[in-house]
Amino acid sequence: QTLFSQAGDIAGVGVDTELITAVPTSETFRQRNFTQSEIDYCSSAPDPIASFAGRWAAKEAIFKALSVPSKGAGASMKEIEIVNTESGPEVKLSGEAETAAGGKKIKVSLSHSDTSVVAFAVAQ
Amino acid sequence: QTLFSQAGDIAGVGVDTELITAVPTSETFRQRNFTQSEIDYCSSAPDPIASFAGRWAAKEAIFKALSVPSKGAGASMKEIEIVNTESGPEVKLSGEAETAAGGKKIKVSLSHSDTSVVAFAVAQ
Amino acid sequence: QTLFSQAGDIAGVGVDTELITAVPTSETFRQRNFTQSEIDYCSSAPDPIASFAGRWAAKEAIFKALSVPSKGAGASMKEIEIVNTESGPEVKLSGEAETAAGGKKIKVSLSHSDTSVVAFAVAQ
Repeated sequence: QTLFSQAGDIAGVGVDTELITAVPTSETFRQRNFTQSEIDYCSSAPDPIASFAGRWAAKEAIFKALSVPSKGAGASMKEIEIVNTESGPEVKLSGEAETAAGGKKIKVSLSHSDTSVVAFAVAQ
Repeated sequence: QTLFSQAGDIAGVGVDTELITAVPTSETFRQRNFTQSEIDYCSSAPDPIASFAGRWAAKEAIFKALSVPSKGAGASMKEIEIVNTESGPEVKLSGEAETAAGGKKIKVSLSHSDTSVVAFAVAQ
Repeated sequence: QTLFSQAGDIAGVGVDTELITAVPTSETFRQRNFTQSEIDYCSSAPDPIASFAGRWAAKEAIFKALSVPSKGAGASMKEIEIVNTESGPEVKLSGEAETAAGGKKIKVSLSHSDTSVVAFAVAQ
């Protein structure tokens, strides 16, 4: 073990998997946890339910990668935004999530099959 | 955020999951997307269908980790080869995939349960 | 490709997925592969079977990330211990696993849905 963290050190990793049918689909849940541009993006996706579920898993994975003690079901995930770009998903943090990240860079990827979603994130 | 990328920076991550039953098993698909040595390896695996599905997911994960804009269903995955070694899968790129990687090193891992495959890749 | 590994280089990644129902639940299996504190932790979790399965997947993912040639079904996973902390799971290696790691730092994350577990590890 090293005493000091160095440039290039991985600070944390996070993985999340969900059955697509297990992710809430209510407007309350979506408004609470997704930004308006995420809602617009997922709502117009070919399969909105899977799209919301994938982004939800991505947020959970990023939350784990940040290694912050969980605040439980009460925490909103809106401060962790997944931005779609031509070269894949990018992460935009705000509020407490941005503070928790402390300048660390986050990479995320997500995937879904017909039944489940998996997302992975790394903080460096 | 930093202005310049540094030694050790992770360039991209990629995850992919597939239901094993959802990955095409036709000769056309396999010839298009797998090298001959991959075909030989998967065909002689205890469960060829799962083996092809796992390698397919690995290729998809690597493709995402390279953060190249997708060319859609038309792209062949043959340029991303998964080589089996005693210490795990290694990645051999050729053609446009090698150009896209631009010297970045790729690590990949894959796993399958009875029903699905998951693969993860990181480009550094 | 570089000739020498550098500070910050990722040495290996590992992913593992399991159907929760596919992970053995016998006392023999648990005593062989889990430390007493892991057994205590998982046994008192809300869903012990899923908790053991998640930790099993985490051990498998770490094993893959270490890129050591597999010793097959005969190897005990007790030397790879997952320690629960407020900020997420941490990894404690002993014996041959510690030797194999050679000072590399391991990060791991795990997740489970109702039916399956996924774990991811990176060695750096």
